[in-house]
Amino acid sequence: MVTIDAERFRESFERYSRIGATDEGGLHRLTLTEADKRARDAFVEDLEALGLAVRVDRIGNIFGRRDGTNPDADPVLLGSHLDSQPYGGRFDGQLGVLAALETLRTLEDEGIQTERPIEIVNWTNEEGSRFPNALLGSGVFTGNTDIETALALTDDEGTTVREALEAIGYDGDYPVEPFDIYAHLELHIEQGPYLEEHDNTLGIVEGVYGMSWLRATVTGDSDHAGPTPMHTRSDAMAAAADAVSEINRLPNRLSADAVTTVGEFQVGPGSINVVPDTAEFTVDVRSYDDSVVAEGVERVREAVAHACSRQSTSAAVEELWSIESTAFDSEICAVIENIAEDRGIAHERLPSGAAHDAKHINDIAPTAMLFVPSVDGKTHNEDEFTEWEDCVTATNCYAEATVELATR
Amino acid sequence: MVTIDAERFRESFERYSRIGATDEGGLHRLTLTEADKRARDAFVEDLEALGLAVRVDRIGNIFGRRDGTNPDADPVLLGSHLDSQPYGGRFDGQLGVLAALETLRTLEDEGIQTERPIEIVNWTNEEGSRFPNALLGSGVFTGNTDIETALALTDDEGTTVREALEAIGYDGDYPVEPFDIYAHLELHIEQGPYLEEHDNTLGIVEGVYGMSWLRATVTGDSDHAGPTPMHTRSDAMAAAADAVSEINRLPNRLSADAVTTVGEFQVGPGSINVVPDTAEFTVDVRSYDDSVVAEGVERVREAVAHACSRQSTSAAVEELWSIESTAFDSEICAVIENIAEDRGIAHERLPSGAAHDAKHINDIAPTAMLFVPSVDGKTHNEDEFTEWEDCVTATNCYAEATVELATR
Repeated sequence: MVTIDAERFRESFERYSRIGATDEGGLHRLTLTEADKRARDAFVEDLEALGLAVRVDRIGNIFGRRDGTNPDADPVLLGSHLDSQPYGGRFDGQLGVLAALETLRTLEDEGIQTERPIEIVNWTNEEGSRFPNALLGSGVFTGNTDIETALALTDDEGTTVREALEAIGYDGDYPVEPFDIYAHLELHIEQGPYLEEHDNTLGIVEGVYGMSWLRATVTGDSDHAGPTPMHTRSDAMAAAADAVSEINRLPNRLSADAVTTVGEFQVGPGSINVVPDTAEFTVDVRSYDDSVVAEGVERVREAVAHACSRQSTSAAVEELWSIESTAFDSEICAVIENIAEDRGIAHERLPSGAAHDAKHINDIAPTAMLFVPSVDGKTHNEDEFTEWEDCVTATNCYAEATVELATR
Repeated sequence: MVTIDAERFRESFERYSRIGATDEGGLHRLTLTEADKRARDAFVEDLEALGLAVRVDRIGNIFGRRDGTNPDADPVLLGSHLDSQPYGGRFDGQLGVLAALETLRTLEDEGIQTERPIEIVNWTNEEGSRFPNALLGSGVFTGNTDIETALALTDDEGTTVREALEAIGYDGDYPVEPFDIYAHLELHIEQGPYLEEHDNTLGIVEGVYGMSWLRATVTGDSDHAGPTPMHTRSDAMAAAADAVSEINRLPNRLSADAVTTVGEFQVGPGSINVVPDTAEFTVDVRSYDDSVVAEGVERVREAVAHACSRQSTSAAVEELWSIESTAFDSEICAVIENIAEDRGIAHERLPSGAAHDAKHINDIAPTAMLFVPSVDGKTHNEDEFTEWEDCVTATNCYAEATVELATR
């Protein structure tokens, strides 16, 4: 039974958490900024201290390789991301990278030699907060995103990914190309409330929700808010509000896991005493069941059409982007499950509502994820929290699963 | 019976409509811009051609005085405004100024000498589209708005009213002070559908709606749109949408004339895959009955509180501004009514849902307004239209009412 050094793990977590720390106990460590550079530098230093060969690829992904006894065996890949949301928490991403680092340190400490090599990685721009495409480094690595497109992405100041990489010295020489991987494991916070609600310490992630992003545009007539009686109005705001109310009631009728979110909303002309002639909003529809997502999209279209018809307005709904659900590798899930059972850890299999870098890696290699509970389900803000005991428990399973997969 | 020169009136209307004309047949003649200057220059020239003494006051209001036979008698004041909305129609404001001008020309043509002087006025910044305070010139004139505050107002570019007045040469020397006025008449488009719905050609405006402007701020928690199930969300957008839907259903239960409008709406953080933690919107509540406005405000507060309670969010509703309803002078209304009856013009008394400069003047002098029908109730856009025949019919009543009041 592999046991990590809980105190060293904690110290490491505290040390990394000071890099780009906010006053409220969170992180402001946007990808490829000075704070991200310092976290990367610490990571490279820690890898080199373990005697690993470090490689930085052209999109800034940082890899470290611990050799196995069989040089021809495909490696086990461990990792996550060190970048954060603008005012994010300390656990999102960072915990997974440090769990991988602690795993390698534990192997080193205990003199465990695996047959397979172990690769550790920090992916560039998982969050997509500074540069628009989330999961960027893993997307380029797996060939899902074109390298030149990725390097040309710009932030709000017009700085490109290429320039940002150069500025912090992480424009690596290594080609961004997938290599053969035996298995990939990513540990992450759940970012939702299910583990906590079910009193479980460990989530074994069997896959990722499918999702669809829609944009609804409602068109009415702008009118003077005083002399225009309610019955002659063609009020885009009123129609959009009715539609959004209905969209928020849809999930309960679709499935237990379906979620819909209206995250962006604009109204025009946007004057206090003018009946709006336009309203535009986005809808994010998700479920682990792709047919539920498809039905959700259909119901959103209907809800918008019905609301607009009632309010004498017209509407268009376009799908901006969609992705099918992902199933992770059930054999790797079973490995983790067995370890959790042996150790008497309360666990459950669950799908992830959020996408992760592991979703991309799953396209090229057998993959699974481990979730730790998020207190109150909070994430992407400074209140994000996971009990440290839970982090340690999950990382012990993670380390043991790594050894088991790497000795196969 | 006074009869205006319909052809001259039309030519004048067409000529002024070319100043700041838009490609779509509307006007882009924001207050104190180059286009407004050209309209003002035309107006001053037309007044001088009538031999009137022209005065420009410090806020840019332009007055012309036609003497009466009794130099001690208080004048009848006629007028409206020449400024427009950003993409407004040709009738809003301009029609009232040109009806007043045509009235004076008709008196001149027909050699009608009134006992009382007649003052004609073009008020500065009625629309409030460029500088925030609508009804600015008439507000300063009546002492409802402080002159220094008015001159210091800025547009989006940071230009002050004072600088804008200087730039177009309408920073007059004349003090902005009310003078004794026997009666004030303003002719305007209805900007609503009632006259058309009731098959009436003339509206005799008995007063102006009371109104209240509110701002609701809804606070929830931002969460990840994927892993956060519906039942744990504190979604500010969902709560605000429910509240807005309810607010739009309120008027039918309040009174036949009540109207509510949600004209501004913002959501934060405003990201497609993030549950919003803030939503802010405005509500405009109006009725001719002040107790209905007060009840409407109460019901808006309740609607917001109920929606927020259901969606586990909190809310604050503040009143930004309110004004009681105005009753115009019933005797002047009766004068117009009698003229309409004598001439066999289909008419009705009605309150105005919109505020007008006449509302300010009513504070210092007996006032009434004449409305002409707005086709489909459209206003504040380039499709704004009134049948020319209706403009002529109403202006004939207006001219006759002017003569009657000025010979009293």
